[in-house]
Amino acid sequence: MKKVDLNCDYAESFGAYTIGCDQKILPLVSSVNIACGWHGGDPVIMGKAVRAAAENGVGIGAHPGFYDLMGFGRRPMKISPDEAKAYVQYQTGALLAFCLENNTPLCHVKPHGAFYNMAAKDPVLARAVCRGVKAVSSELILLALSGSEMCRAAEEENLPYRQEVFADRAYLPDGNLVPRGQDGAVITNEEEAVVRVVKMVTEGKVTANDGSELSICADSICLHGDNEKAVLFAEKISAALQKADVAVTPLKNL
Amino acid sequence: MKKVDLNCDYAESFGAYTIGCDQKILPLVSSVNIACGWHGGDPVIMGKAVRAAAENGVGIGAHPGFYDLMGFGRRPMKISPDEAKAYVQYQTGALLAFCLENNTPLCHVKPHGAFYNMAAKDPVLARAVCRGVKAVSSELILLALSGSEMCRAAEEENLPYRQEVFADRAYLPDGNLVPRGQDGAVITNEEEAVVRVVKMVTEGKVTANDGSELSICADSICLHGDNEKAVLFAEKISAALQKADVAVTPLKNL
Amino acid sequence: MKKVDLNCDYAESFGAYTIGCDQKILPLVSSVNIACGWHGGDPVIMGKAVRAAAENGVGIGAHPGFYDLMGFGRRPMKISPDEAKAYVQYQTGALLAFCLENNTPLCHVKPHGAFYNMAAKDPVLARAVCRGVKAVSSELILLALSGSEMCRAAEEENLPYRQEVFADRAYLPDGNLVPRGQDGAVITNEEEAVVRVVKMVTEGKVTANDGSELSICADSICLHGDNEKAVLFAEKISAALQKADVAVTPLKNL
Amino acid sequence: MKKVDLNCDYAESFGAYTIGCDQKILPLVSSVNIACGWHGGDPVIMGKAVRAAAENGVGIGAHPGFYDLMGFGRRPMKISPDEAKAYVQYQTGALLAFCLENNTPLCHVKPHGAFYNMAAKDPVLARAVCRGVKAVSSELILLALSGSEMCRAAEEENLPYRQEVFADRAYLPDGNLVPRGQDGAVITNEEEAVVRVVKMVTEGKVTANDGSELSICADSICLHGDNEKAVLFAEKISAALQKADVAVTPLKNL
Repeated sequence: MKKVDLNCDYAESFGAYTIGCDQKILPLVSSVNIACGWHGGDPVIMGKAVRAAAENGVGIGAHPGFYDLMGFGRRPMKISPDEAKAYVQYQTGALLAFCLENNTPLCHVKPHGAFYNMAAKDPVLARAVCRGVKAVSSELILLALSGSEMCRAAEEENLPYRQEVFADRAYLPDGNLVPRGQDGAVITNEEEAVVRVVKMVTEGKVTANDGSELSICADSICLHGDNEKAVLFAEKISAALQKADVAVTPLKNL
Repeated sequence: MKKVDLNCDYAESFGAYTIGCDQKILPLVSSVNIACGWHGGDPVIMGKAVRAAAENGVGIGAHPGFYDLMGFGRRPMKISPDEAKAYVQYQTGALLAFCLENNTPLCHVKPHGAFYNMAAKDPVLARAVCRGVKAVSSELILLALSGSEMCRAAEEENLPYRQEVFADRAYLPDGNLVPRGQDGAVITNEEEAVVRVVKMVTEGKVTANDGSELSICADSICLHGDNEKAVLFAEKISAALQKADVAVTPLKNL
Repeated sequence: MKKVDLNCDYAESFGAYTIGCDQKILPLVSSVNIACGWHGGDPVIMGKAVRAAAENGVGIGAHPGFYDLMGFGRRPMKISPDEAKAYVQYQTGALLAFCLENNTPLCHVKPHGAFYNMAAKDPVLARAVCRGVKAVSSELILLALSGSEMCRAAEEENLPYRQEVFADRAYLPDGNLVPRGQDGAVITNEEEAVVRVVKMVTEGKVTANDGSELSICADSICLHGDNEKAVLFAEKISAALQKADVAVTPLKNL
Repeated sequence: MKKVDLNCDYAESFGAYTIGCDQKILPLVSSVNIACGWHGGDPVIMGKAVRAAAENGVGIGAHPGFYDLMGFGRRPMKISPDEAKAYVQYQTGALLAFCLENNTPLCHVKPHGAFYNMAAKDPVLARAVCRGVKAVSSELILLALSGSEMCRAAEEENLPYRQEVFADRAYLPDGNLVPRGQDGAVITNEEEAVVRVVKMVTEGKVTANDGSELSICADSICLHGDNEKAVLFAEKISAALQKADVAVTPLKNL
């Protein structure tokens, strides 16, 4: 039976500020990427998130971002490899503290926003991210953009990794995502997106934006819990996978 | 042979900003309290600090502070017990990440500045701090103001703790520090301060500011590395302890 | 004809985080207190808020808070008078920049959250706040809790001020608010609250929580735009004032 | 008689953290660029800095930076034009508040660090910076890298500007600075640097790193007050200019 992980960003609220539909998305996923206080999240929220994830049997990952709350970690920033490593390490350790309390394992690390996008393309940054993860534990899984520099870096660093795909994004013939802002970057037709997801998972293939078919490794699918609509879409994907006899399971079981 | 730990705050620089004489104070102490990025310190500095401490055989502690870099964590802030617990936990976990990398144990936790002062007097806050420490590991040692509410809280929470005294501070008959700003709060005569320290360690006694003698537990002495003068004073205390046949040793060996 | 100002906190969103019903509350008020980036708000949001307020003919005020985004400026912090003055001045100047661009006057300053509550009771802090306001312009109006230390401080500093009352809060016989958390602190019966507001404005009287009647100066009423319910309540107050022949007008016209 | 302004970055300390030799560099310059609390500086320090500059007859400028205290504003960050404009405007307004208090004019704006470097090359960002300055006052002078995109943007926006050169930096034949990190980027020979400065000011020429001579407009020279050595170098430049009969005068007098 085919298996896949469903992951989503989680616990990105901050203090009095609420963002995302955490409670609604949690039952739909098998892994959560918990914000660690830099681009979003705060210690009290992290504590509640770890507890909720553990109680729901959902795999817990750290979601380290840039120190840019004002930009929600979405703005590219030039940081050195030493900084990148230390920033991943710091945030991962901070989240680990809440896992230790709940006697629940920290399973994976997935960089957030601009950090993720930059590391997907920049081998030096990707390597630094891997070192930051490994510094905490060499058993942590890096959750990386499928086919990206982060995958190569993880291999070079002997760090376990899994590859994720996006349900709502178009792919270039070389396997990269069509950059946001470009025509057709986002798949707006939900039915089409669902079909694509099932094909990526069951056949390991996706149709690129030039019509060519390309191989893709889909260990995990990134869902969004930003709003009601995103949650409804996540439900459709979940249902379609079930219908296609794909088992949804946390990263560690893949 | 009498034993005592010498501790100092450490790695409180931030980004381009340097504070304290870290390199000069390190050889004089047996434990360091490493800032965790909130009142001071940043991930890159934390990484270097842990490495330096490990290489020098110095015990490593987390030094969590309020999220108030502008006030260097010295300004009282009213936070809830849940916040206090989570803030200690977050910062301690962040530092733990660097200890794991260096395969060196995280030994203790000592709150910083206003957080320390408030927890020393407020049993509810003290308890929350202890819970934050214990959430990371029940083997971590709380380094607490001698005779304070933090000691009582640690006992109630079954958390190991050690008691620290200050070389340059006067004591009230009830064992509390004479508040800063009050006449005679700081012992400015270095010779007198050194004599007091040796007596606290070897006899467990200190003369209060009303002339009465009071019992005090001095597991650890807090030194300062703020400037050249503070470092010289630390050297004098270190020398006086040696002369008095007191062994200086990390907290874990007490 | 009786006149009163209706004010509300405004533009407290931050980056990707949205808070409050700004668009819905704006048509109901005659003054807004615009967050200045410390407890909430950011420069882009401030720019939009000033424009929207100017276009709606609403009086613009600065809403300086503590540098505590994580606590939304609601946590008491001990700051020095010099800090308090400079913090008010900095944030007020920052907002002034957006008023200058729109060729619209900055009219008033109202401290936020814990800053407001502390300054209402502490004459030294209140004085420092007034000095910070006056440093920017001696024509700015301080919007202060009715009968509080801020009013006295403004008089001593020769700073114009107006007094605000709360529709949904109970008063002690001495004119102070019943502290939140205490029984009956918040008036939950909307009809009762509306009647109280009209009486405060038209008769200058309010019934204290011991049944006694006390004099109160109600230049401005603080409304809330936190959520749909608060906006509906604001509408009721607005309608009741109109029915009572009270003109709603910005602070500068009082 | 030839005239030139000498400017330096100023008041970049933060809270308990001290950076730079403010007191020593102040008597040597005719303009200061005062940090505005984002990459460095805080409101209390800003207040003191404005007072000191006013008392010394030194021209006051705002020195807005990225919201990146951890990186001291030196790390490139991708921000939108709207953000750039609002960030300049916010910080400039914040500093203006302290000028208003001292009844001393705010004279110029010079972006800091990575913000400056990026705006020097990116016409869209440069334009946004100019709009942010102009939003506060169309009489403010933009202090820009000589010959850069910021100069062009200021012309297009009808914003007054002055051009600055660096004493210790080598120039490419096209007038750009040799990027730091590249061989020969920094002129380490002090005598050579002094001679270059005098020539830039008196002849409007500088020898590029390929030996060619290029025209350069030197309205202002950027000095550094980072450390004792930098201050000594500033003194040498100051003396050499005096010997060459060049009058040092604030930007507004050029």
